[in-house]
Amino acid sequence: MTSPATGGPFPGPAPSPVPGPVPGLFSGMFARGGASAEVSDVAWLAAMLDVEAALSGAQAGLGLVPAEVPAALAEACRPGLYDIAELGERAARTGNPVIPLVAALRERVEPGLRRFVHYGATSQDINDTAAMLVARRALAPVLADLSACADACARLASEHRGTVMAGRTVLQHAVPVTFGLKAAGWLSALDRARAGLAEVPLPVQYGGAAGTLSVLGERGHEVPPLLAAGLGLTDPVLPWHTDRTPVARLACALGTAAGTLGKTANDVKLLAQTEVAEVAEPAGPGRGTSSAMPHKRNPVGSMSVLACVQRVPGLVASILDGMVQEHERAAGPWQAEWETLGELLRLTGSAASWLREVLEGLTVDTARMRANLGATRGLLMAEQVVVRLGGTPEARRLVDAACARAVEGGSELREVLLADPGVSLTIEEIDAALDPAGALGSAATFVDRALAAHENFTGAGS
Amino acid sequence: MTSPATGGPFPGPAPSPVPGPVPGLFSGMFARGGASAEVSDVAWLAAMLDVEAALSGAQAGLGLVPAEVPAALAEACRPGLYDIAELGERAARTGNPVIPLVAALRERVEPGLRRFVHYGATSQDINDTAAMLVARRALAPVLADLSACADACARLASEHRGTVMAGRTVLQHAVPVTFGLKAAGWLSALDRARAGLAEVPLPVQYGGAAGTLSVLGERGHEVPPLLAAGLGLTDPVLPWHTDRTPVARLACALGTAAGTLGKTANDVKLLAQTEVAEVAEPAGPGRGTSSAMPHKRNPVGSMSVLACVQRVPGLVASILDGMVQEHERAAGPWQAEWETLGELLRLTGSAASWLREVLEGLTVDTARMRANLGATRGLLMAEQVVVRLGGTPEARRLVDAACARAVEGGSELREVLLADPGVSLTIEEIDAALDPAGALGSAATFVDRALAAHENFTGAGS
Amino acid sequence: MTSPATGGPFPGPAPSPVPGPVPGLFSGMFARGGASAEVSDVAWLAAMLDVEAALSGAQAGLGLVPAEVPAALAEACRPGLYDIAELGERAARTGNPVIPLVAALRERVEPGLRRFVHYGATSQDINDTAAMLVARRALAPVLADLSACADACARLASEHRGTVMAGRTVLQHAVPVTFGLKAAGWLSALDRARAGLAEVPLPVQYGGAAGTLSVLGERGHEVPPLLAAGLGLTDPVLPWHTDRTPVARLACALGTAAGTLGKTANDVKLLAQTEVAEVAEPAGPGRGTSSAMPHKRNPVGSMSVLACVQRVPGLVASILDGMVQEHERAAGPWQAEWETLGELLRLTGSAASWLREVLEGLTVDTARMRANLGATRGLLMAEQVVVRLGGTPEARRLVDAACARAVEGGSELREVLLADPGVSLTIEEIDAALDPAGALGSAATFVDRALAAHENFTGAGS
Amino acid sequence: MTSPATGGPFPGPAPSPVPGPVPGLFSGMFARGGASAEVSDVAWLAAMLDVEAALSGAQAGLGLVPAEVPAALAEACRPGLYDIAELGERAARTGNPVIPLVAALRERVEPGLRRFVHYGATSQDINDTAAMLVARRALAPVLADLSACADACARLASEHRGTVMAGRTVLQHAVPVTFGLKAAGWLSALDRARAGLAEVPLPVQYGGAAGTLSVLGERGHEVPPLLAAGLGLTDPVLPWHTDRTPVARLACALGTAAGTLGKTANDVKLLAQTEVAEVAEPAGPGRGTSSAMPHKRNPVGSMSVLACVQRVPGLVASILDGMVQEHERAAGPWQAEWETLGELLRLTGSAASWLREVLEGLTVDTARMRANLGATRGLLMAEQVVVRLGGTPEARRLVDAACARAVEGGSELREVLLADPGVSLTIEEIDAALDPAGALGSAATFVDRALAAHENFTGAGS
Repeated sequence: MTSPATGGPFPGPAPSPVPGPVPGLFSGMFARGGASAEVSDVAWLAAMLDVEAALSGAQAGLGLVPAEVPAALAEACRPGLYDIAELGERAARTGNPVIPLVAALRERVEPGLRRFVHYGATSQDINDTAAMLVARRALAPVLADLSACADACARLASEHRGTVMAGRTVLQHAVPVTFGLKAAGWLSALDRARAGLAEVPLPVQYGGAAGTLSVLGERGHEVPPLLAAGLGLTDPVLPWHTDRTPVARLACALGTAAGTLGKTANDVKLLAQTEVAEVAEPAGPGRGTSSAMPHKRNPVGSMSVLACVQRVPGLVASILDGMVQEHERAAGPWQAEWETLGELLRLTGSAASWLREVLEGLTVDTARMRANLGATRGLLMAEQVVVRLGGTPEARRLVDAACARAVEGGSELREVLLADPGVSLTIEEIDAALDPAGALGSAATFVDRALAAHENFTGAGS
Repeated sequence: MTSPATGGPFPGPAPSPVPGPVPGLFSGMFARGGASAEVSDVAWLAAMLDVEAALSGAQAGLGLVPAEVPAALAEACRPGLYDIAELGERAARTGNPVIPLVAALRERVEPGLRRFVHYGATSQDINDTAAMLVARRALAPVLADLSACADACARLASEHRGTVMAGRTVLQHAVPVTFGLKAAGWLSALDRARAGLAEVPLPVQYGGAAGTLSVLGERGHEVPPLLAAGLGLTDPVLPWHTDRTPVARLACALGTAAGTLGKTANDVKLLAQTEVAEVAEPAGPGRGTSSAMPHKRNPVGSMSVLACVQRVPGLVASILDGMVQEHERAAGPWQAEWETLGELLRLTGSAASWLREVLEGLTVDTARMRANLGATRGLLMAEQVVVRLGGTPEARRLVDAACARAVEGGSELREVLLADPGVSLTIEEIDAALDPAGALGSAATFVDRALAAHENFTGAGS
Repeated sequence: MTSPATGGPFPGPAPSPVPGPVPGLFSGMFARGGASAEVSDVAWLAAMLDVEAALSGAQAGLGLVPAEVPAALAEACRPGLYDIAELGERAARTGNPVIPLVAALRERVEPGLRRFVHYGATSQDINDTAAMLVARRALAPVLADLSACADACARLASEHRGTVMAGRTVLQHAVPVTFGLKAAGWLSALDRARAGLAEVPLPVQYGGAAGTLSVLGERGHEVPPLLAAGLGLTDPVLPWHTDRTPVARLACALGTAAGTLGKTANDVKLLAQTEVAEVAEPAGPGRGTSSAMPHKRNPVGSMSVLACVQRVPGLVASILDGMVQEHERAAGPWQAEWETLGELLRLTGSAASWLREVLEGLTVDTARMRANLGATRGLLMAEQVVVRLGGTPEARRLVDAACARAVEGGSELREVLLADPGVSLTIEEIDAALDPAGALGSAATFVDRALAAHENFTGAGS
Repeated sequence: MTSPATGGPFPGPAPSPVPGPVPGLFSGMFARGGASAEVSDVAWLAAMLDVEAALSGAQAGLGLVPAEVPAALAEACRPGLYDIAELGERAARTGNPVIPLVAALRERVEPGLRRFVHYGATSQDINDTAAMLVARRALAPVLADLSACADACARLASEHRGTVMAGRTVLQHAVPVTFGLKAAGWLSALDRARAGLAEVPLPVQYGGAAGTLSVLGERGHEVPPLLAAGLGLTDPVLPWHTDRTPVARLACALGTAAGTLGKTANDVKLLAQTEVAEVAEPAGPGRGTSSAMPHKRNPVGSMSVLACVQRVPGLVASILDGMVQEHERAAGPWQAEWETLGELLRLTGSAASWLREVLEGLTVDTARMRANLGATRGLLMAEQVVVRLGGTPEARRLVDAACARAVEGGSELREVLLADPGVSLTIEEIDAALDPAGALGSAATFVDRALAAHENFTGAGS
């Protein structure tokens, strides 16, 4: 067996299987959870080989290639047989790694069958279908972590359905809410993020050199449905070589999920501030320590979620920007998707895994929540006093003035109201108006709604 | 009636209704189509007033406010009664325009009913619901233009189902395709962009100061379904003050649609190049002229689409980034959405309107398409020769060598093949292999599929 | 005077001068300060006319056009003579507003001189030079507001050079700092932001149809230096029609400045939280009020800064992305810059104006700062105890343990240390270690350095 | 030697030094050139250790730590002694890799000196200074490749100073230019990109826990100048823990450089199109081949540049967005910089390396350039005919009409002009007007200017 000038056989002893991505200095923060391994080079290689194997299976089923091709490819399509570094080096000359991979694959198949390897396909067919397969596999742990996040929120919402705390708007105390309502808000958003990811279609790609599948005569279009069935992907209307809708949708669903994870982590970060101290992240040996400050217990989890999430929108923009592709195959924007898609899955996955740890171990200090409600000496309840006074603009002006006096004098709103002859309320009415637990409106109903929606969640859309 | 220093009645004579956005220097390019007017300040004001009116209608229906409130508000909620510049100036002091608008609105209602204006609502309730209403109204012309784009593509795909042209990958001739297939690819993507936009849920927002609707006792949650019905919006599970999923989804669907518009325009731009000249944009008096070059006919339409589309991904990233909001109302990221959402609608709408003009008037030069097929002196058909020779690696090496000789000698591939004793094909076989029309594979089937999907398009999902 | 087929004379009675941008609903937040007016359509029109006038001046100086041309153009180049809406409408047909503007300009010049209007220029020459002029004019108020921000920070740094407060890392109390040091950090960053903006070169553009200035024979290159001198811009090495370095640099300097404004506002927002309450934004009638909550005083200023700043990075990305232009003039990416550049100037300017108001009126509660230092019952000083104990790992472990006991017991660190026989410090040493004012290291020196650098600030470089 | 509870000694036998980043499947495209290795985990680890060593050197020089510390650290600061995967795993618990690294480093130093390891520093000090060191080292090959790109452009500009070709605006033939002028434009932009990168200040970071350096008493501020000198970095006015100006400037300079690389590659891509064919990328065994099309020679180099460049703006936006940090250390935005900065250096470096290969081996087909000039049958020269006819609007209308007739009739403009009685030019004048070489204006002067600026390039500023 001689090697052609431009390729050469991959030398005899097969490289041992690469076991997965090597953890790096920053992996703890950015590559937590299961998605990272599923977007590694080994995972990409495995997906590419799975696509080549499934393609021959689909084609053999249609009688387009000899019946023995699938078995030969199944044997040759084991990732451990290939050297990623060498493939990568050769890929640089051609612009993508499928070309040297196909060359190497053919060397491992008996000569008479070689022409049926990668039959009728262009390298983008393999790369795109592999990308969808990588996405499907990486989404599984992301969805599992999101599901666990949602379950943890459901527990918090249920348990704290009646836990009163300060509602905060533009970071100022506003009116009372419950921690259950806050958790229900997280829950509802997380469930929609899951649904959004679950409903993204992940289609196979098979169009040949320029979308006509001309090598297969007029039967090429029969292949994609079988290929899709074989790989657990969907069957597109047409080849989508330069219609990047599937990639854009996936990126957008990941971006939306990441934003939701970030919002939740942001709340935890703010509630865990030294001066607020209403929640704390789970503790553990060495977790959240500082090299300079012995007493610190940093919110490492929400910080890590936020660090991951910060990086996502720019990557989504890059994918959307890259939709403007040329003719039947793009020169740049398509290739730019490869690593970016992996980053999106890895970072969103890492954020989901971190948030899961945070939420599952979250410590809630209900006493502190109640104590903080008094931070404004009753001003938080001003709206309720207005309501009790009839809700008129005049009532509002009266209460505005009382609030101003309370602020100036550093006194409790209750005392100011009692001393104000214009306030036509009894002590009992004033105390009722100033009781946070009496001003929760539909909070409990909303908690119940979010819990019911979570119970009924099927992952199929919102 | 005198006005208090900080608010005051808006003075007697009503300002005349503002007729819509004033066209600007750059509006022709960036504000074409119907969406621009729907995101103008007048449209926002009208939407805010519509929300206040609909809110009172829903509340009166539930007996939460007196029955005469809706009529009073219907009278007061005419946009022409309010001065946008004055509202804008006052908005700066409070952070959003709803606060001064509500103050002005109350002045126009009899004193006894004033407390039922904006009843139980926070300004974000009005602003967010108005944003969804603005979006719904602006999407109508965008969807109409996208639909017309798709129809034009369907006509092109149908008419040019058999028009052979060069397929181009990484901007090099690859193998033959049909112009019908190219148009079918545009069509399929445009139909999915439409579906993606049509299925975005646009929910009402009504949660009061911090999401509990406490002013309404325990009945607040009964309002949103009626409000949604009144405004043609959807009913959310919970208030979503800091869960920006609805805005993110809308932004993403617009971003994906814009990318699809850009891809189509990019193809037109490239096909209209002087050296390619396979299509031309519609001509018209003064259209596409240059201030310096008398002969120029610039592709103004695809250029304008591309200019609009270029600006979209950064705006989507801004929305996604802004999902990380604080507690019950954000200090910055929420407000940053307002103009950005309008820009996304305006720019995507302008791109859709421009592309519609381009596609509806596109001139297709089928003779030039055929002529260009010969640009590589037959090399374009090399893959077919490989197929005829058995598709083996040996066949490929043989054809590779023939191609190389043809390139070096500047000769036709046909001549080289005929002169090559290793090529075991007859003249007829060679001519058949070199005929582009004989190598179109499943192109026609794919065209038919895209046309059928378009026929059956209902706008409800992908 | 008859009108040419594609243009037509602009009708007789001159439109009255448009007085500037009309404030909109959201202008208070996003268009505060002087930059907004300088990027309005009127300002663009004025800049374009200034460029045409200056061009003829430069050319007359070189004897390239008759000596009477500049006077004729000076007369015709008054913005009030032109109707922006009409120019915008015509611009849509040609792709940019200069083409109809030149047509209209020529109508206002006597026939014999018309050919010397816009002499040798392409529309991009005018548009790009006008963009640089718009930028120069809009930067003036931005730089003035940044300078005022820096001055306010310098005052705060100087006044609070010794005001002790909690240093916070990852939103947890870390070790003591001074408010002066915090303000010095803001100051230093703001001064560098100013310097970065001041040093961006803003070159004229003059290259003719494709950069050769062929209409002027071989003397075209003599024009740019004179044009630059006439307009207060810089003289580039070459025409830069598709080398967008100048625009990218400007966008980047604005992006960096915006980030710096955002960081400062973020600190204010966090320090103004109800539970922290160490600073407050300036109060004023109606400023920061809520439509639902009478007691609220929202940090409207820092919120507005953050809202503006949130929108900037995506715009910078759009500019950078658009650098990939085609040949001698781009079809899309160039045009996409126009409004984006204005937005960048407007939003950065609005943020600077808002921050100026915040900083100039900032209320600092030094008593609260000192009180908050005690929030961790002495843990904040743990590092100093380690230092006093020798700074060894053993000392750190000892203090870690003491901190843990203090946290568990809810007791003061001082009591725990006093009770710990392993702690070999006297009461006096412990009290000294626990005194925040004794642990400020080089804070005062750093404040002095930032103040000195501010004193010496010349705006020229970093 | 016993291990502390939270860390533990790194086990005896030192791991062998990791030799650098393993090439991956996509490395050929995205990790070409020298920058990739300089941003690897090994390079980060080495930089962190270099910073710890240099810090002790600076402190020993000031008498702040015992004189024997630097030697002990020099011994311990060899990267091969540490296991990156283990550091990464431990980093996850604390939020950054410096904390476990310092713990491991201390284990390798005799107990009495351990407290002087990482003396007075916080982990961000090391991480940030290491980031600047990584940047300095990674920029060296980037600048070398940019310099080689510029040299190649200078050769092309010089050699093709008189090579006439079609100037193209909005992808249509406009007027003649020279290929030398095009290359001069690339050159000028590349030189400014180099200057922009070379002038970015890369400061050390040393502020301790919260910027006061309190552990060092009042002498902490003496350290940074010595540290900067030791590492070849600059000395900042203040610690910049949450003032991210240095990182933003670096990101922006990389973004601008990437845009410039992309513009050049975009021109090559367009000129190499099958129908244009004026340039070709260097050929080589296997370079640019297709898996499906034997004849293809793809522009792999410019495609790879464009793929890298596409990914950069979103990363710059992420850095700018992350400038909005909290207090004295951020919870998320800071950490988000780490990998992003490496990506920016790697991708810009890869683009520069690819473009260097493209430009150094570019084949220029001057005959095809001249032939393509005729594609519009003389219309390209229409502007010159207008000039010869006096440059008046009437002349322009005359030529417009002639152009229109030439287009309609498919005839040469020369013939139409000769047949037009209104055209008052002799045959010789018409031929002179239609000669592209006679209409190059200042092209040669501009080429000379760019070459002179390149000759005088010092890398210091713009």
